[in-house]
Amino acid sequence: MNIRKPALLLDEIKCRENIRNMISKAKKHNVGFRPHFKTHQSLEIGRWFREMGTEKITVSSLEMAEYFSPEWDDITVAFPVNIREIDTINKLASKINLNLLVESAEAMNFLTNNLKSKSGYFIKIDLGSHRTGIDPGNTGLIDRIMEISERSDKTVFKGFLGHAGHTYHCNTKEEIIKIHNDSLDLMKQLKNIYVRKFPGMIISTGDTPGCSLSENFEGTDEIRPGNFVFYDLMQLSLGSNTEEQISVAMACPVVSIHKERNEIVIYGGGIHFSKERSENETEGTIYGRVAENKDRGWGRIIPGMFVKSLSQEHGIVTVPEDRISDYKIGDILKILPVHSCMTADCMKKYLTPENREITMMA
Amino acid sequence: MNIRKPALLLDEIKCRENIRNMISKAKKHNVGFRPHFKTHQSLEIGRWFREMGTEKITVSSLEMAEYFSPEWDDITVAFPVNIREIDTINKLASKINLNLLVESAEAMNFLTNNLKSKSGYFIKIDLGSHRTGIDPGNTGLIDRIMEISERSDKTVFKGFLGHAGHTYHCNTKEEIIKIHNDSLDLMKQLKNIYVRKFPGMIISTGDTPGCSLSENFEGTDEIRPGNFVFYDLMQLSLGSNTEEQISVAMACPVVSIHKERNEIVIYGGGIHFSKERSENETEGTIYGRVAENKDRGWGRIIPGMFVKSLSQEHGIVTVPEDRISDYKIGDILKILPVHSCMTADCMKKYLTPENREITMMA
Repeated sequence: MNIRKPALLLDEIKCRENIRNMISKAKKHNVGFRPHFKTHQSLEIGRWFREMGTEKITVSSLEMAEYFSPEWDDITVAFPVNIREIDTINKLASKINLNLLVESAEAMNFLTNNLKSKSGYFIKIDLGSHRTGIDPGNTGLIDRIMEISERSDKTVFKGFLGHAGHTYHCNTKEEIIKIHNDSLDLMKQLKNIYVRKFPGMIISTGDTPGCSLSENFEGTDEIRPGNFVFYDLMQLSLGSNTEEQISVAMACPVVSIHKERNEIVIYGGGIHFSKERSENETEGTIYGRVAENKDRGWGRIIPGMFVKSLSQEHGIVTVPEDRISDYKIGDILKILPVHSCMTADCMKKYLTPENREITMMA
Repeated sequence: MNIRKPALLLDEIKCRENIRNMISKAKKHNVGFRPHFKTHQSLEIGRWFREMGTEKITVSSLEMAEYFSPEWDDITVAFPVNIREIDTINKLASKINLNLLVESAEAMNFLTNNLKSKSGYFIKIDLGSHRTGIDPGNTGLIDRIMEISERSDKTVFKGFLGHAGHTYHCNTKEEIIKIHNDSLDLMKQLKNIYVRKFPGMIISTGDTPGCSLSENFEGTDEIRPGNFVFYDLMQLSLGSNTEEQISVAMACPVVSIHKERNEIVIYGGGIHFSKERSENETEGTIYGRVAENKDRGWGRIIPGMFVKSLSQEHGIVTVPEDRISDYKIGDILKILPVHSCMTADCMKKYLTPENREITMMA
């Protein structure tokens, strides 16, 4: 591999294995699988899912739905419907099975007045992360949205959708599993209320930490994890994955070495990694961890060797004192990202260890 | 303006005024002006500088130098030379006046062996930010680099270059001015040592905080500020600019309103703003501040209304209680970014209030 500039390496074997594992888990528990494609944003990687039987997907924007629509005809846009994009919604709804997310009477009102083709909708439920969604106890608002929907034959109720994003703030696996189980309970209660009126309705849940760690999926009909395709340091610290399962790494040229402070300067900054960070008491702020170099990809994380700061194009890597002499300018460091979704979005393409470029959404 | 998705608004009048002010300041103090184009990364915005007399520029990568090279023939790449890009360096050096940054004997050695056309080089001096550069007291290493350079007729010493990036960690204007003055003193001492041997050598310094706040430029020959073209909340908190001088704002559609917790959900997340943040004790973490909406652009910052968290595509805006009823879904919020360089890099284009798109480097 002749890497000249920062590149995002993708280990296809690990990635396919991550996909296979999650598909097996969904099958084992007899739940539908609608993976979130916002992590990889790539038609080619999408095809790896397809080969293993995946037929429906989740995305986080209408733009992404448009990108995937030539190859996927069942797409949920897991983002509160943006009424300013009604033209795109109508275009997509006329071509594919589109599902939108509704969390207000105003949005539903707009849809019933402006949708030109049939579109499914999920009511977004707040499972406790308090980012978006309706409180599961607020059946008054849920009923109101359904009532407005009935004025039109274009809006078709599909079920309730939730994302327990607060698992990302957990410190232990037990906390994650508790949130996961509590979420299933909340959804079961809602389903009990509405299933008689809508016998085909489904419950859609499932973030990467919950889906990776739990063996209980009773009460959900469909899971939508996304990040598991690559995993990353954030998921590693949550216990979702092992080090070996992380399937992407940044490859960054060494441009300077400062032995007097045990630091390496890499070409690779905030515009490559994103400024996503993690923190811990002993090491401070971390933007990525350096792994052992290997001809094909990378090996284990090197303890104490991490990206401690990022400027626009520079990264500063802290190096263990007994390692600093192993490096010279022009070397390539392989660095595991804190948050693979954000890093992939910055990089806009992947490079396999076999030197093949994999494209993603522009 | 019909904004459907997150857009980066650029107020051309404010931006041109920022450029004009900095050019006037450089002229007044009789120092050269080599603005850093990493902030805007746009050929068109570059032309606004050109119209006001700018002839030479700074960039942060060879990729950016290539992008600007059709219109600019005097470019300093203010980043430690990445020897893996020697082919790009040779291509550029054969076409334009290129200046590279060297901070190690190894890099100079590589250049003398591999450069095919003449290229200028600056020795990067660490003015105290300890990111890159040689300690100004380490004349042994400086001499060594110059000595290696003399083996080749391709490497031409241009002078010393420094970036006092630690001004970004200051809490008061006085601290910034002190760092700025100390940097000038360090550079003057170096010049005294080397100017007899290199009478044409120059001292290149100047970050946006120092160049905005100081009226002392004695001892520098050239300034290289970049961010001032847009300014942002980070610079505002340093005192570099007024609120009115910020020339970019994100326009983001409102997709949900949660009155019970005084929050608005916008379409606009980490992939649009970048995850750059600022923190203060009363408000916590901030990713952007909402300004009053105006037909042409935006007005004053609304106190207490700011982006408190960012996911990949979502932003959560804290809204003052007496303001929350002023908004409805489908509205556009205009939001000043924490770090305009990073936001511009995410957005990859600008939109003027006159609805004209301005392109930047892909």
